[in-house]
Amino acid sequence: MKTLFKGGSVVDVFTDEVLKADVLVSGETIAGVGTYGEDDADAVVDVSGKFICPGFIDGHMHIESSMLKPYELARALIPHGTSAIVADPHEIANVCGTDGIRYMLAASEGLPMDVYVMLPSCVPASPLDESGAVLRAADLEPFYADPRVLGLAEMMNYPGLLAGDEDIFEKIADAKRCGKIVNGHAPLLTGRDLDVYIAAGVGDDHECSRLDEAMERIRKGQAVMIRQGTAARNLAELLPLFAEPWSRSCMLVTDDVRPLDILHGGHIDGIIREAVSLGKPVLTAIRMATIQAARHFGLRGIGAVAPGYRADLLVLDSLPALDIAEVWHRGRKAAENGRALPFDAPAVPEDLEKAVRETMHTRAFTPADFRIEPVKGDCRVIRLVPGQLLTEEMLFTPKWDENNGIDAGSDILRIAVIERHKNTGHIGLGFIRGLGMKRGALASSISHDSHNLIVVGANTEDMAIAANRARETGGGNVVADGGRVVAEIALPIAGLMTDGTVEDAAYENLALRDAVMSMGMAKGVNPFLTTAFMSLSVIPFIKITTRGLVDVIRQEFVPLNAE
Amino acid sequence: MKTLFKGGSVVDVFTDEVLKADVLVSGETIAGVGTYGEDDADAVVDVSGKFICPGFIDGHMHIESSMLKPYELARALIPHGTSAIVADPHEIANVCGTDGIRYMLAASEGLPMDVYVMLPSCVPASPLDESGAVLRAADLEPFYADPRVLGLAEMMNYPGLLAGDEDIFEKIADAKRCGKIVNGHAPLLTGRDLDVYIAAGVGDDHECSRLDEAMERIRKGQAVMIRQGTAARNLAELLPLFAEPWSRSCMLVTDDVRPLDILHGGHIDGIIREAVSLGKPVLTAIRMATIQAARHFGLRGIGAVAPGYRADLLVLDSLPALDIAEVWHRGRKAAENGRALPFDAPAVPEDLEKAVRETMHTRAFTPADFRIEPVKGDCRVIRLVPGQLLTEEMLFTPKWDENNGIDAGSDILRIAVIERHKNTGHIGLGFIRGLGMKRGALASSISHDSHNLIVVGANTEDMAIAANRARETGGGNVVADGGRVVAEIALPIAGLMTDGTVEDAAYENLALRDAVMSMGMAKGVNPFLTTAFMSLSVIPFIKITTRGLVDVIRQEFVPLNAE
Repeated sequence: MKTLFKGGSVVDVFTDEVLKADVLVSGETIAGVGTYGEDDADAVVDVSGKFICPGFIDGHMHIESSMLKPYELARALIPHGTSAIVADPHEIANVCGTDGIRYMLAASEGLPMDVYVMLPSCVPASPLDESGAVLRAADLEPFYADPRVLGLAEMMNYPGLLAGDEDIFEKIADAKRCGKIVNGHAPLLTGRDLDVYIAAGVGDDHECSRLDEAMERIRKGQAVMIRQGTAARNLAELLPLFAEPWSRSCMLVTDDVRPLDILHGGHIDGIIREAVSLGKPVLTAIRMATIQAARHFGLRGIGAVAPGYRADLLVLDSLPALDIAEVWHRGRKAAENGRALPFDAPAVPEDLEKAVRETMHTRAFTPADFRIEPVKGDCRVIRLVPGQLLTEEMLFTPKWDENNGIDAGSDILRIAVIERHKNTGHIGLGFIRGLGMKRGALASSISHDSHNLIVVGANTEDMAIAANRARETGGGNVVADGGRVVAEIALPIAGLMTDGTVEDAAYENLALRDAVMSMGMAKGVNPFLTTAFMSLSVIPFIKITTRGLVDVIRQEFVPLNAE
Repeated sequence: MKTLFKGGSVVDVFTDEVLKADVLVSGETIAGVGTYGEDDADAVVDVSGKFICPGFIDGHMHIESSMLKPYELARALIPHGTSAIVADPHEIANVCGTDGIRYMLAASEGLPMDVYVMLPSCVPASPLDESGAVLRAADLEPFYADPRVLGLAEMMNYPGLLAGDEDIFEKIADAKRCGKIVNGHAPLLTGRDLDVYIAAGVGDDHECSRLDEAMERIRKGQAVMIRQGTAARNLAELLPLFAEPWSRSCMLVTDDVRPLDILHGGHIDGIIREAVSLGKPVLTAIRMATIQAARHFGLRGIGAVAPGYRADLLVLDSLPALDIAEVWHRGRKAAENGRALPFDAPAVPEDLEKAVRETMHTRAFTPADFRIEPVKGDCRVIRLVPGQLLTEEMLFTPKWDENNGIDAGSDILRIAVIERHKNTGHIGLGFIRGLGMKRGALASSISHDSHNLIVVGANTEDMAIAANRARETGGGNVVADGGRVVAEIALPIAGLMTDGTVEDAAYENLALRDAVMSMGMAKGVNPFLTTAFMSLSVIPFIKITTRGLVDVIRQEFVPLNAE
């Protein structure tokens, strides 16, 4: 089957030019770019006055953050011109181990958006946590045989690397031996430590939030992934990189993007539009989002409109505005007028489907599970720092006879982290300040990085209701108030992903937000996003896991009682 | 062993900057680029006021053209800052087949200049010739297991490719399946034919002699190898490519370079200096000659001064002038003050050494071997076109009773091509005009691409003497005059390479040139280079092989007699 795109202009990512040319596609591949006639093809697409641009590549994203399974994510992203993503299944791997990686590979096979996979390098993120799995070098190595596996995902354990951890070096050595790459994750690492990190083989970073940080990395040979996602938004700060010589070493990524933001802001197309609106050249941005991402990952024959390249093409009505009229993937039309065309869902083996759908291993809860045995004197409280993932420790003297020490009036709520992988019955309990909820409770099976069941509430009754509902639905985000569930999104896939569409997920997330807002949640706090990080015991200063409060700096458990 | 290069400035090929920084080398690898102290290292090299630059990479060359074996070539090139070359052993493969490739790999192993190899794609170049070997896809495929083999060498049989030749597509498919690349060689191919050629998987070209030709290739995704060698010199024409966006897709290569030119003009360093003298930025030229060549070939960790990169470093006294004070390779000093430091010659297995040193399979010659049985009427004559490899056919009526039809006074000489691989006794005989020799004869075991023994002379006695001498030395270039050998270079390795140094080879080549000049060779004719192409039956219009005259356009043998 030969298709001719006739009469348009081609975005040439090799030369940052827009050139008048027809594009002849044969099967999945571009056969020619130049002057071709209708006789050369079986079908002709008239693109007079339009532009042909290569499909976009997201160089780093966690599918789980979209709360969508790969099939629904593809349906959501394809109309935005995304032809390929490089996914790190770090979250599902923390829950399901290698089955989680296998599921993501199976559930994304053959989609009209190519899904490449990086192997989660740091599962679990911390030995203080209880994850669903531990992935060592030998667990990961067999996956490199899959051509869709491009390397080792973000090496966030840079303290371990700098300390010479053997398993880390084995993981890196495996990746290199197989000709694969290693993604970085080392915010603000600089100087000699950065040299050691890069020399070990880490080829890029997506955590640059400062221009000087990004420039140091580029000078030292790393690629910089300019990240613009739901929470972490580095585009404005890194805008000077959209020029030579810097742009040559950059690509565009989202890292974590939520359903509402996909619906509202799109995907890589949205980042390009934003860069253009901030005065940057659209051709530079497109180059970063296409050929440069492909080359960084060693993906030959992807990311350009040129002979021999895969026919992943966008038909644009206008260029700087990036009005995407049609999306073609491997020579077939995949979207038009902002809608993905129907395609088959991948067939996932039954055992994998089962493995990722039965991950809430806990007993049912009662309010007593969330009650703390009164202690004498001051208790430690996790205090949120507005707008940050950092927390600080504060002290507080609970009135144990009233509501088991919870004092919603003073914004002191109960927080619980329930082990949910192996039904150990472990529940870490504590106090948290800064959410502002005056009543009710929320529960979530998304809590970084082990994704135990995290529950926050103004009373233990609603906490039990919310937690039980999340358990019943196989995982999910739930808000309970006044003794009943008032909003929820079921996340039956590993407690992380829904079976719904992006629209379903966005609607349910809005309903959840409205519910917590009506309960007094502080403005500017994204309730589930914030609580999801309260168990990540690698971000200072005080966090909580299934086994209690953690002093992050000292990397040890501390008692609730501060005396 | 840690070595610190302290106090200098580093050429950053990622950003086209020169940055003040120390460089710490640990073993073979760069450990850090920044501020380091003497305590960090076992040895300190004071590079105050100097520049550290990555070693240069020649992206395409034929070692055989230097007439030097890899060991001597390395000794010659290392002081010029060459850290790596990508070699196509096309010539020796035409003589010795896979043994020739194996020899080149063995004879270049472990040198203080890395030698990568591309597999000759077109052996023999033409079915009208008699080569020492035929290399089919199945012969080449096993070599891809060698990490120093980077792909399939110049696909010069583009007519075959365009016609869908199965063996060509099998060779390309093998390279791609093994993750390797395919070099191009398709001068002036354009438009649809170029699209087909590129779409088949050909990733670069080194034959661009015109700017528009190079630009079309870059726009279509190929890399352009800007070639500046002994015979083919494209730098001046392609000079505009030393700027964005073009330079991103370019590298520097020599293709074929003779001993005298190495001594006189250097290597990649010479091309960079020439580009600079023509007004181009030295940092752009260095980038093309380092990281871009490395990345094109998928060589990670080579071509930059950055953490984790191989410590292939040049210490320059000055930057735009490129005064190379020291050359370091894999963390060891390899040259200083223009001289390579001593290093061991690679150990070549005895059977390979034997295979490449016994390649003159012919009987001894007498003048009668070079005599033509008189024919009636006009004979075809190969007429040289000054300054070109093209020839034209002219007609001439020999006086057979005088000197067997040779008429040196009218510049009509005898030319003979003697099959030397399988001792078939085949000798193609004819006339050639344009060399201008008034007496004597020359013989050469270098004749493209099959490297049979080519002999040109003003009398059959000297032809026999020159041919016999080339046979005795196991191959070589010989000039005979007045019944004796007057100049020679022995080329015992496949009849292509000497055991001598670059100085020896340059001296002997000068002596050969002087000898033929004294015999009346026309000015501006490089005698051995010119005659070496008289048997290449793919360059129009009339050539001669072991089986006689060839009409190149019709690709068939034609009789000497034109009637």
